Amino acid sequence: MASKRIGLQTIELPLRPAITGCAACVGRKEGEGPLGEYFDFVAKDEMVGQETFELAEKQLYLDAIRKAISKGGSRPEEVQFLLGGDLLNQIITASFSARDLGIPFIGLYGACSTMAESLALGSMLLDGEHASQIVCAASSHFCTAERQYRYPLEFGTQRSPTAQWTVTGAGASLLNLSPAVPALAHVTQVCLGRVVDLGITDANNMGAAMAPAAADTLLAFFADTHTQPEDYDLIVTGDLGQVGHDLLMQLMREQRQPLPGDRYTDCGLLIYDRKAQDVHAGGSGCGCSASVLNAWLLPMLQRREIRRMLFMATGALMSLTSSQQGESIPGIAHAVLLESP
Amino acid sequence: MASKRIGLQTIELPLRPAITGCAACVGRKEGEGPLGEYFDFVAKDEMVGQETFELAEKQLYLDAIRKAISKGGSRPEEVQFLLGGDLLNQIITASFSARDLGIPFIGLYGACSTMAESLALGSMLLDGEHASQIVCAASSHFCTAERQYRYPLEFGTQRSPTAQWTVTGAGASLLNLSPAVPALAHVTQVCLGRVVDLGITDANNMGAAMAPAAADTLLAFFADTHTQPEDYDLIVTGDLGQVGHDLLMQLMREQRQPLPGDRYTDCGLLIYDRKAQDVHAGGSGCGCSASVLNAWLLPMLQRREIRRMLFMATGALMSLTSSQQGESIPGIAHAVLLESP
Repeated sequence: MASKRIGLQTIELPLRPAITGCAACVGRKEGEGPLGEYFDFVAKDEMVGQETFELAEKQLYLDAIRKAISKGGSRPEEVQFLLGGDLLNQIITASFSARDLGIPFIGLYGACSTMAESLALGSMLLDGEHASQIVCAASSHFCTAERQYRYPLEFGTQRSPTAQWTVTGAGASLLNLSPAVPALAHVTQVCLGRVVDLGITDANNMGAAMAPAAADTLLAFFADTHTQPEDYDLIVTGDLGQVGHDLLMQLMREQRQPLPGDRYTDCGLLIYDRKAQDVHAGGSGCGCSASVLNAWLLPMLQRREIRRMLFMATGALMSLTSSQQGESIPGIAHAVLLESP
Repeated sequence: MASKRIGLQTIELPLRPAITGCAACVGRKEGEGPLGEYFDFVAKDEMVGQETFELAEKQLYLDAIRKAISKGGSRPEEVQFLLGGDLLNQIITASFSARDLGIPFIGLYGACSTMAESLALGSMLLDGEHASQIVCAASSHFCTAERQYRYPLEFGTQRSPTAQWTVTGAGASLLNLSPAVPALAHVTQVCLGRVVDLGITDANNMGAAMAPAAADTLLAFFADTHTQPEDYDLIVTGDLGQVGHDLLMQLMREQRQPLPGDRYTDCGLLIYDRKAQDVHAGGSGCGCSASVLNAWLLPMLQRREIRRMLFMATGALMSLTSSQQGESIPGIAHAVLLESP
């Protein structure tokens, strides 16, 4: 039997892989939000100087990775794997970035859970000593996602109150097993989620589709580790938005593991000023948790304002085809425990 | 520094994770091919008793996973991770199968390299003792892939001579760290590939797009391990087809590491009778290498007809959007060294 498993879904990482570099590069709207000053780069517009929205997203992705590697005191040639994904069909943002970087590439698809999925996998690979440096990345772009998943941008379709706004942004973290530079944080436990589906079919209410998966992973993690929500300084979900945030609070209350209001938040609520920025239920997209983690949350751990943070990104695993064929929307949530140095 | 790395891209797995179960479930055309009798299940038609092609693909996926787990002497509740992907947008085959199985899910996208990507990752996670049982799976379906990537099936578009035929099939392998049943094979080394793009833009010539990536990974592996092609009883690529197979032979000759004709083959050439079955350059799709590996190649290792097999699946990482925007087709290849018990 493997010795590092705790309970059913949680895995301990005795070598405590370090995150030594992090970076987030975002669009203009994100730069105008409450975290604006913390991003490494804020684009002037959604084109980021490129000819297509897709190339714009790739540019943010590449920039975030290069900055994370450089801030982590390393160079691309020293990094063994790029673990990454994005929301586009065939994850072209990640694949084409990997082509430009030349780093061996492990392509992931976890929808908006990708940042946590990549960190969980990456830190296990370091903990198993199969690599010494790994870069993890995820991105989304409002214009590429909207036209792929919903409507042509030119329609100007009215959005429903439960809808979230896809973040234009990319985040990257450099994981390092034996860092020569100080760590920002350590990954000490990971909890990989199951696919959970309570039958939500409204593609404009992703928060509700993902909240049951978030609850499932949280409950598994607390049971496996014999801990409770109060044992963590901060629990952060990826992009549940207001609807999913409230639903997760309710689900956890019903399971008698209520999340303390002052210690639980969601990246989709942090990234925009919901009153001023017309984003309805909040931010979404795998760039949401990726950019908030790498711009705002990891530095909080580095400064030791918080000591133990459970970062859990959630994903909605449907496609246009599955929705058109009447399938409901399955959700997934992966969690990583991040501790200050 | 990590101790299990050999050279730049290759990783040694000292715990030699075992494959204890394997299964392949395919469509009718594949059942009529030269490997027909070796598959665990051959569907009567492309619907596999389901209402849509997508549900048919999912059914093959689920069946292959369940059979691999059962043949490996285990049960789904004992398996810690499903590492899987497929060719469909948002990998809905894998995600919806994970929903039905309840096994924690790590979603991958490596196009047709997925079977090797999942085996490489899964065996590293076992070697790191982060899990004791992992199931790896990949699939494709001619009808779902054709209508997503190329033309509506009803068009009956004429296919070009370099085109390959997407395999309808799913393959799954159960990896086990401390098996109670005899191993079919052991995964002893893995080599993760870089994204390579020599500028091919013809989506009907995937073999040519992927061959340079195959050469890149092979050359890295031979350099890292100080071995040469003759040191392996069999080198098998995923789905280069005849065009890619010949191109890879040429590229390796040019690099003065020629692949011996009697020890190198390609799953895309094995699965169909190219003369009788009108498949042009051969089979393709991640179900191609997944079903040939799990039906034909792993049992050869189990019977010790061969001792050391390098299994390398290749993927073409383009999307409809990237092709329409004029991008060329990047390729990737991941390799795993499989040894007989």
